[in-house]
Amino acid sequence: MLEKQSSTCLVTGGAGFIGSHLIDALLADKTVGEVRVLDNFSSGRREHLIHHQNDSRLKVHAIELLDLEKILPHFKGATSVFHLAANPDARWGIDNTRLDLEQETIVTYNVLESMRRNAVPQIIFSSSGTVYGDVGTTVTHEGLGPCLPVSLYGAGKVASEGLVSAFCGTFGTRAIIFRFGNIIGERTTHGAVFDFIRQLAKNSGELKVLGNGFQAKPYVYVRDLVAGLMFGKKKCAELEASKFDVFNLAPGGATNVRFIAEELVAQLGFAGRTKILYGESSQGWPGDVPQSRMDSAKLAKAGFSLSRSSDEAVRHAISHILQWLAERTLEDGLRLPADARLSLSR
Amino acid sequence: MLEKQSSTCLVTGGAGFIGSHLIDALLADKTVGEVRVLDNFSSGRREHLIHHQNDSRLKVHAIELLDLEKILPHFKGATSVFHLAANPDARWGIDNTRLDLEQETIVTYNVLESMRRNAVPQIIFSSSGTVYGDVGTTVTHEGLGPCLPVSLYGAGKVASEGLVSAFCGTFGTRAIIFRFGNIIGERTTHGAVFDFIRQLAKNSGELKVLGNGFQAKPYVYVRDLVAGLMFGKKKCAELEASKFDVFNLAPGGATNVRFIAEELVAQLGFAGRTKILYGESSQGWPGDVPQSRMDSAKLAKAGFSLSRSSDEAVRHAISHILQWLAERTLEDGLRLPADARLSLSR
Repeated sequence: MLEKQSSTCLVTGGAGFIGSHLIDALLADKTVGEVRVLDNFSSGRREHLIHHQNDSRLKVHAIELLDLEKILPHFKGATSVFHLAANPDARWGIDNTRLDLEQETIVTYNVLESMRRNAVPQIIFSSSGTVYGDVGTTVTHEGLGPCLPVSLYGAGKVASEGLVSAFCGTFGTRAIIFRFGNIIGERTTHGAVFDFIRQLAKNSGELKVLGNGFQAKPYVYVRDLVAGLMFGKKKCAELEASKFDVFNLAPGGATNVRFIAEELVAQLGFAGRTKILYGESSQGWPGDVPQSRMDSAKLAKAGFSLSRSSDEAVRHAISHILQWLAERTLEDGLRLPADARLSLSR
Repeated sequence: MLEKQSSTCLVTGGAGFIGSHLIDALLADKTVGEVRVLDNFSSGRREHLIHHQNDSRLKVHAIELLDLEKILPHFKGATSVFHLAANPDARWGIDNTRLDLEQETIVTYNVLESMRRNAVPQIIFSSSGTVYGDVGTTVTHEGLGPCLPVSLYGAGKVASEGLVSAFCGTFGTRAIIFRFGNIIGERTTHGAVFDFIRQLAKNSGELKVLGNGFQAKPYVYVRDLVAGLMFGKKKCAELEASKFDVFNLAPGGATNVRFIAEELVAQLGFAGRTKILYGESSQGWPGDVPQSRMDSAKLAKAGFSLSRSSDEAVRHAISHILQWLAERTLEDGLRLPADARLSLSR
């Protein structure tokens, strides 16, 4: 089944980090007739979408996705759903154990149930490499099991994947599930790079790294990821009813935290000046997966490959993050370290 | 770490089909000091435990597991949890899509959170072969992925498995996850055997089978399964903190619906008299996995094997079910067909 020329795309979490970059790509596609954003603005920001304020195809709704009855009418007439809304930080589940259950699992159920009741035919779902659990440096491919994550964030992703496939198998929905590597880029305000910038803004002479710095994961620059999501939309439209498929969306290889710290310090112009202090633990926090390697062959065979390696993605993203941050002060007062002399490398 | 001599076992769903058989085994073990049953009695029955009414070690609590605050105090001092409470029928999720989300996923979260807050060290969790999804006659082993089920029942199991492993990885719980084949035996009132008995009680001349009858799955007799659960309790106590493991609990091979229908008709004394009518579909209902084969090697290597093949389990279970039914009339009025002449084979 091929999509109609003028499609209506609904994006949950569309004002967030990944979501807002996806909106940029969807609105750049002239076959897209309407883009609906459902976002509770807990992490999302109106600022991320402000440059589209004159595009009448974009409709933004501030709404809590936990409320099924409220979100139901917004799914009417949608031709594709990108479900990106989620708790953005795996660490938050340690203190609030119910967070991922609500913002991942129950929200995903609400999205799928809203699609079912409105006969929305397809969903592109953002899962994560955390579903593979802690398997060391084993290169994880999509045929590997058991998918037993060690964080509540990962548990929410596994649960959501299962709901997606079950709605397909039982009610005829089509789906593409993407398991993301670590996403990095401008418009986010958390993760290792931001932890480091926060420290350096206070004292550019010293940077303390959680763990020994040898934790290594595959990184994807956010706009490259969005290209993959757009590919997923096309791929999903080619599936028969009730069919779904799952793809890793990450480069082969991995980047360790030491590389990130050193690259950031260099691009800030602090090389040789900031003392980087590493901890002793091989794990950052309870539930953290210190090592992750993902196989990208299945998606490549289907027709999509990322253009950058993990190290290249990190370098590229840091330059974009620093340029983005140079133009603003964040809500919590964060700005670039006053003594930074940017030396961006792309 | 080894368990203390006198343990306190908490069994969710302990008045249900599998649960009540487990209670029999736990109370037969004199090292077990106390057995607590938490059951909402939606499928559970007091009758299943009535023969233990004089055993002061058994405490039965009628309680809704969806209510975290209410169940919390019951976990105090428990040394092992067997989490068996669940929606017992995969078909019910088709009409009530929220059922498995609540009775599997959210209930499992509540159980794990109650364990965490009361420092209960270990859980034995009842998952299902449905987590493997619809993979045809592929023999599913525990290292196979992706675990993308096609029923909401299976989605609830996948979600619950992920929660179990996440609480282990993040908070130090120990766990054994068992993926069950189809469980068969007395004290249940649903499933293929009961569908058939219901039909035959109305008209013993004809039996209509959903689908073409070639749907085939591995069957386990309920008391044999319970032996596996008791093995799991020991195995779990040997794990280090934060560790978990997953095992298929099913025989190799499979039994098709034709065998079940013919065996039931024979044991009822209807051979040559009941006309068995098969449908045309290879699938019983939307979300049904028509073919399932499970690898039992991992559990065997760990030290436990089922004593019966799938066909033997079905034959043995039917004789127990018919004998059990011969002694009672069920709540819905069901009794053995009036013209049955039992010819039990064990």
